[in-house]
Amino acid sequence: MNTTSEQQKQINIAYIGGGSRGWAWRLMTDLALEKDLSGTVRLYDIDFEAAKTNEVIGNKLSNKPEVVGKWQYVAVKSLDEALYGADFVIISILPGTFEEMYSDVHAPEKYGIYQSVGDTTGPGGLIRGLRTVPMYVEFAEAIKRNCPDAWVINYTNPMAICLKALYEVFPKIKAFGCCHEVFGTQKLLTEVVKEFLGEEREISRREIKVNVLGINHFTWFDKASYKTHDLFPLYKEFVNKYYEEGFEKTKGLWEKDYFASANRVKFDLFKRFGLIAAAGDRHLAEFVPYIYLTDKETVYKWKFNLTPVEWRIKHREELIKLSKEYASDQKEVPLNPSGEEGVMQMKAILGLDTLVTNVNLPNMGQIPNLPIGAIVETNAVFTHDDVRPVYAGKLPSDLASIMIRHISNQELIVKAALEKDLNLAKRAFLNDPAVERLPQSKAEQLFDEMINNTKKYLAYLGL
Amino acid sequence: MNTTSEQQKQINIAYIGGGSRGWAWRLMTDLALEKDLSGTVRLYDIDFEAAKTNEVIGNKLSNKPEVVGKWQYVAVKSLDEALYGADFVIISILPGTFEEMYSDVHAPEKYGIYQSVGDTTGPGGLIRGLRTVPMYVEFAEAIKRNCPDAWVINYTNPMAICLKALYEVFPKIKAFGCCHEVFGTQKLLTEVVKEFLGEEREISRREIKVNVLGINHFTWFDKASYKTHDLFPLYKEFVNKYYEEGFEKTKGLWEKDYFASANRVKFDLFKRFGLIAAAGDRHLAEFVPYIYLTDKETVYKWKFNLTPVEWRIKHREELIKLSKEYASDQKEVPLNPSGEEGVMQMKAILGLDTLVTNVNLPNMGQIPNLPIGAIVETNAVFTHDDVRPVYAGKLPSDLASIMIRHISNQELIVKAALEKDLNLAKRAFLNDPAVERLPQSKAEQLFDEMINNTKKYLAYLGL
Amino acid sequence: MNTTSEQQKQINIAYIGGGSRGWAWRLMTDLALEKDLSGTVRLYDIDFEAAKTNEVIGNKLSNKPEVVGKWQYVAVKSLDEALYGADFVIISILPGTFEEMYSDVHAPEKYGIYQSVGDTTGPGGLIRGLRTVPMYVEFAEAIKRNCPDAWVINYTNPMAICLKALYEVFPKIKAFGCCHEVFGTQKLLTEVVKEFLGEEREISRREIKVNVLGINHFTWFDKASYKTHDLFPLYKEFVNKYYEEGFEKTKGLWEKDYFASANRVKFDLFKRFGLIAAAGDRHLAEFVPYIYLTDKETVYKWKFNLTPVEWRIKHREELIKLSKEYASDQKEVPLNPSGEEGVMQMKAILGLDTLVTNVNLPNMGQIPNLPIGAIVETNAVFTHDDVRPVYAGKLPSDLASIMIRHISNQELIVKAALEKDLNLAKRAFLNDPAVERLPQSKAEQLFDEMINNTKKYLAYLGL
Amino acid sequence: MNTTSEQQKQINIAYIGGGSRGWAWRLMTDLALEKDLSGTVRLYDIDFEAAKTNEVIGNKLSNKPEVVGKWQYVAVKSLDEALYGADFVIISILPGTFEEMYSDVHAPEKYGIYQSVGDTTGPGGLIRGLRTVPMYVEFAEAIKRNCPDAWVINYTNPMAICLKALYEVFPKIKAFGCCHEVFGTQKLLTEVVKEFLGEEREISRREIKVNVLGINHFTWFDKASYKTHDLFPLYKEFVNKYYEEGFEKTKGLWEKDYFASANRVKFDLFKRFGLIAAAGDRHLAEFVPYIYLTDKETVYKWKFNLTPVEWRIKHREELIKLSKEYASDQKEVPLNPSGEEGVMQMKAILGLDTLVTNVNLPNMGQIPNLPIGAIVETNAVFTHDDVRPVYAGKLPSDLASIMIRHISNQELIVKAALEKDLNLAKRAFLNDPAVERLPQSKAEQLFDEMINNTKKYLAYLGL
Ligand SMILES: [Mg+2]
Ligand SMILES: [Mg+2]
Ligand SMILES: [Mg+2]
Ligand SMILES: [Mg+2]
Repeated sequence: MNTTSEQQKQINIAYIGGGSRGWAWRLMTDLALEKDLSGTVRLYDIDFEAAKTNEVIGNKLSNKPEVVGKWQYVAVKSLDEALYGADFVIISILPGTFEEMYSDVHAPEKYGIYQSVGDTTGPGGLIRGLRTVPMYVEFAEAIKRNCPDAWVINYTNPMAICLKALYEVFPKIKAFGCCHEVFGTQKLLTEVVKEFLGEEREISRREIKVNVLGINHFTWFDKASYKTHDLFPLYKEFVNKYYEEGFEKTKGLWEKDYFASANRVKFDLFKRFGLIAAAGDRHLAEFVPYIYLTDKETVYKWKFNLTPVEWRIKHREELIKLSKEYASDQKEVPLNPSGEEGVMQMKAILGLDTLVTNVNLPNMGQIPNLPIGAIVETNAVFTHDDVRPVYAGKLPSDLASIMIRHISNQELIVKAALEKDLNLAKRAFLNDPAVERLPQSKAEQLFDEMINNTKKYLAYLGL
Repeated sequence: MNTTSEQQKQINIAYIGGGSRGWAWRLMTDLALEKDLSGTVRLYDIDFEAAKTNEVIGNKLSNKPEVVGKWQYVAVKSLDEALYGADFVIISILPGTFEEMYSDVHAPEKYGIYQSVGDTTGPGGLIRGLRTVPMYVEFAEAIKRNCPDAWVINYTNPMAICLKALYEVFPKIKAFGCCHEVFGTQKLLTEVVKEFLGEEREISRREIKVNVLGINHFTWFDKASYKTHDLFPLYKEFVNKYYEEGFEKTKGLWEKDYFASANRVKFDLFKRFGLIAAAGDRHLAEFVPYIYLTDKETVYKWKFNLTPVEWRIKHREELIKLSKEYASDQKEVPLNPSGEEGVMQMKAILGLDTLVTNVNLPNMGQIPNLPIGAIVETNAVFTHDDVRPVYAGKLPSDLASIMIRHISNQELIVKAALEKDLNLAKRAFLNDPAVERLPQSKAEQLFDEMINNTKKYLAYLGL
Repeated sequence: MNTTSEQQKQINIAYIGGGSRGWAWRLMTDLALEKDLSGTVRLYDIDFEAAKTNEVIGNKLSNKPEVVGKWQYVAVKSLDEALYGADFVIISILPGTFEEMYSDVHAPEKYGIYQSVGDTTGPGGLIRGLRTVPMYVEFAEAIKRNCPDAWVINYTNPMAICLKALYEVFPKIKAFGCCHEVFGTQKLLTEVVKEFLGEEREISRREIKVNVLGINHFTWFDKASYKTHDLFPLYKEFVNKYYEEGFEKTKGLWEKDYFASANRVKFDLFKRFGLIAAAGDRHLAEFVPYIYLTDKETVYKWKFNLTPVEWRIKHREELIKLSKEYASDQKEVPLNPSGEEGVMQMKAILGLDTLVTNVNLPNMGQIPNLPIGAIVETNAVFTHDDVRPVYAGKLPSDLASIMIRHISNQELIVKAALEKDLNLAKRAFLNDPAVERLPQSKAEQLFDEMINNTKKYLAYLGL
Repeated sequence: MNTTSEQQKQINIAYIGGGSRGWAWRLMTDLALEKDLSGTVRLYDIDFEAAKTNEVIGNKLSNKPEVVGKWQYVAVKSLDEALYGADFVIISILPGTFEEMYSDVHAPEKYGIYQSVGDTTGPGGLIRGLRTVPMYVEFAEAIKRNCPDAWVINYTNPMAICLKALYEVFPKIKAFGCCHEVFGTQKLLTEVVKEFLGEEREISRREIKVNVLGINHFTWFDKASYKTHDLFPLYKEFVNKYYEEGFEKTKGLWEKDYFASANRVKFDLFKRFGLIAAAGDRHLAEFVPYIYLTDKETVYKWKFNLTPVEWRIKHREELIKLSKEYASDQKEVPLNPSGEEGVMQMKAILGLDTLVTNVNLPNMGQIPNLPIGAIVETNAVFTHDDVRPVYAGKLPSDLASIMIRHISNQELIVKAALEKDLNLAKRAFLNDPAVERLPQSKAEQLFDEMINNTKKYLAYLGL
């Protein structure tokens, strides 16, 4: 990646899932706000019309005089067209439809298994993974064929399974995964700073320096600071103060918004393990379901939510409507920074900056007590054509043991998919801590049911 | 350890727990049957009278004309006396009394937690461990002081916790741990040989060659052979044939003998993981309590037993009576080989033989996907002054993840004891898969109760 | 490998290099002396006539009444014919001819570089390796195709390069490498036993128990014992006594026999590193040429020999003559055990025995401070269908650093050959400790010359 | 390290070697130029007068109105006084006097061994190390006692030996080592940028982004970029252009200045290994003495210098004179940034910045093919109370093998000193690549001579 000033004008971004009605708009606005970059974004989506609509929206944005980052958006009909010669590849897809996701999340409820998200681990995440791997096999092969030197940014869940599949198929791929859950915890820490250090100005979450370690959605800080201040003693006070009631910036929001929580899971995990859990409570809970997800009352007590897929379906309708309004001049795409880091990361990779931030990468030793090759989340340094993990150190052994179980299950899913061995997938499923409570026969029945519900995507397994 | 023929006559064995009324007699008979060794056995026990009785029993045995291995038995009153100048140290103790063990095993039952043995892992094994570590700290220090080059053979449970404590305190200690659970599974395989290969003569379990890997009481074979025959396909047939009904040499024994089982857990684990589980069902079940130990009906269904401590208490009475009879000429100690390997191991370590057998040792890489330093069970080669693990290979990742959780908990107990930090012990306790099902408040209540029941032995924690 | 008694009668051995006039006869006599095995040996050689002659010799042997191991020998014309359905594959070839070997050994002499053997490391060993790898690539592919479950025993040098090539091409291959250098040092230790322990009976070298660690031909013992005796203090005395003069069973032999030495290099290495060097002095010296191979006087002073290739050429003539005599009834193949272990190893792998002995295998951690994957020599346990390394432990760091350099060079040669990159081969050559003393231009000149001398075998590099 | 704004005014720096007449002034000027920090610098030196003079110089500087960083300098008479309560400890000493250094560098010349610096590895560096370790043992113990949470910055050579000693004695020490050799190579790359990219403005060496990997003074880049430009293809052109003649900013300087070179060694190493060697040629050459240091003519041919200790002695006189002038108002300390990074690093560690730069740290896996625990040089991220290595990746195996030898020797020196075992030191000495060319007796004679020359500092070895 040896770009001259001229080439810089011609950056090629391939967007897989380019019809997306949320992530795509976030990228568009961030690109629009960045004066140092420009080029082409090729939008690929199995829903070509959605990509086409985003093409219109993106180009309209570029034409606005106040927009400093000028990009050309083009919807394309094939992966190869999108990827050929790409400098960056962004992958943000929904693996399957909400129909399959409905099964992932809600089928286990009949068996007394509740999931707050259902896209990462647990029965939902694992089955979703089994559906996702063949798609990522296709992506990896197409990337190898079309743009082997491109940097690949994944936003899709299950994060670890997606990235693992990419690296298994094309080991030299330059891929990493991004997730904003850590950012949310940094924001929570800005509240701690305000409350205990009396800081009055608005603090950016990027001013909270953290050492990140763990796996996606079960990520932790073992160091956190603000300027010259160690935040651990302050967070301890904060947790003690708000442990029972929880803490929310907008009080009571968790009862109205399926994505909100009162951070009680986070506080309880701090008491248990001494580290700051750095993801939303809905995600964290799924890694220790026997603590926070045993039944609906327990979920309510801990003040977080089981996000129903119906809500996602309804919300999609609104987004479709919105996309039409954006495309047809009825509404303007608001020009606010998304809070995501993709564009900053691209700048650094192009050589225009040095950036230290958290990402998901194969473990090369950055967390010495997790398995080598497992997809882990730590800080990394981004510079010209380079993303290198920072040594994050060891996890407390009990936390590590909890993660290793999920890592093992996620990796078994990838193996099951690559070797087309449904039995391996069942082994992962049975080893899941939410499933383990079911009698064997029930667990197998649930597995069969969930597999059946998603079989449209499992033809590769001979189903 | 450079023994001349003369010195060989003077082998010194220190027996910690030398008042034991089962293990000690086993050693005595094995020594009596071995013509190539002789020397002194110093018996140390906190119950000096028991040691004294064993001194009498041992010396009577040595005086029998038919006995070829002549040893002098001496009961001693201090650890230092027992250990000074020892060539071998045998440790076989009951950490605490049956009163504490009663709590370990049965206190959790009120909370719906059932344990089949309660001495290895789970709430019982962990609390027992917390009581045991300070004793082993004392042993390690005394060994370092009195006989740093001695070989130390541990028979006490919790095996991993005992050995870890020895190595933490005295890293250069030459200690390993022995357990006969693997032998039992080899014996089961001799039944497979008889049934499927039509072998009619009695087969020794030592003719069944196995690759052993795992942790004590959750040990596995990924290879097993008899002469030129791979036993895996045969065992698969065997499991399929007996899966529902179970297999016992003496049919129905499991309903009469608290230590017996119909091997159904073993067969089910084979179906799940594809490897041969190589310990008694009672032990195996405790590592995956959510499968086999959820309630008494489940235990019954799987045809194994929860061994009540009352039985042990009653049985002790019988043994005390027996010891008096042995000591007073009313009864003869029967001269049968015990089936244990301690004496064979000593012979090999003295240089008189080469032996390949399974033992517990710190992981130096013999199981690459378990943590380095964890106490693991694999084959080892015994030669002159040397016990070296054989490379056992990787475990399937789901099995490894299950073990890593128990390893983490066991190591946290050792750390809790060495750092005198009760909170670490609670972390281990809460991370146990049997405990995880309890609501936090119940789990903590149980922990407090169990700690209180054993507090006589926890003064070192400031309790 | 699940052999029934019937199949056992039909063991298939493929012998690559089956026209060999030394190694092949050794195998034949060992097979003839082993009553428990029988079957077919297929002899493959690029010199078909030589294989054919060995077929005759072998079958004559089998027909002798006093021979208990009955085998059928068949010379075949292709690798595939030899390998199809083989249970064991033996590889013992001369890579190239003595003409190329002449260059390997003697071309560097003009530059002041002396080699005592020239087949393992140093300029000769590396260039020989470059010629050998493509042959082993062919073998590995043919084994994968014809008999993927066969056990492969390599006797060819350069041992590490041959085995590395096999494992690179076919990672699941069951291959190990055998060399008798260690045996020679065990024999030397029997002399120590005789001299210092007054043992009068003949002692077998197998009674000397050793922990083996290192790389082929630069192998070491850090433990050695005879019965109950630690041999290290005795060897120290022995070295002190014979350091200046050297020790030979047949005094003065080293001045008459190119393969003999007075063990002075071995004694000096003991003084330097505190471990027992366990290979012939000629081999050992080549790993630290700056000590023992700086010039001919130094070699003479240390009382070992530079074996001239002329001798090998002459000796071959004698062997050809001998082979004719054997084949034509003029002479009988003497029925003495060869001292090699191949047949014992096969018996153990078939499940008829358990054997602990030294072999060359990829490092899976048996020597923790050598690189994982490097071909190392340690003890291993042989049982049914299984060869597992024994944990050998760490090498002293200076010894390890010397080995790592040779390992790196040998692995670079394999990589150079597999990637067809002559420049990598030159890097290995320049990094060799014998070559390093040359000015760059001289070193490159020598490289070019040696490459040119062997270019008949380097067509695959585009030469 | 939880500093409030108030505390920030009171940063305590302990300077061991505070009488230094170069490094101390560099720190003083850098502190004077940094407006965000202030506090006290306690100067400790075995030459108290020198420290006292620096106290005067430092305080004078602080009193200048144009100086924005106000510090109080205090010369103290004991280590404990200097260290008690320190936030940072700087160590920059001369271990021994120039008399001993004279022997280190020049004693080997009689034996045909030439050293360009003699302070890092080779006979000089190793003997210097043996003298240095006991000093660092004392420092480590005093730091543990007085300021266990302080950050320790080492500038003394031999870098790896100094840091290893600190970590061996006090494993939880927060120590790292700094060296400007990498900066010099970054500066050289700015010349490449100017020449091939036509950049006309002055480029800061910090704009050259590099991935650093290796060991101190034998450090390498495997990535280098300037803005969007990969510098590897440009450097290749540069090397080809200047290979024969060399490259200097000031042409011919290498013949006048003992510290200058024409970068020919660097260029040649690039041709050999394909990576950019990132230290001065004088240092680099000492790691492969058989290439560049075989005799004086070779050194001259490669256009670098053997720095004579006489020069250092003479230069010291000038510095003493200068120190008197600075202290007595005859001369002003010039207020130019030193180019060192110590003050930037302190700022980042205090939480005022995030910094990515190269430092020496124990290997925690940042270079996977060097031994864990070895002192290696890579990039690290500096944030609040935190210095974490960045994953640097594997070295080419031949380079790694060269480094491992030096690492082994340096670690043996530390072990020799800690275990007070002169024989281990001799092993390291004999394993050095410059010494290896000597016949054993000569090598031992040189060792004895050099040991004798420095015996004033080796009383701890019982000499
Ligand atoms: Mg996410
Ligand atoms: Mg047991
Ligand atoms: Mg050999
Ligand atoms: Mg330096």
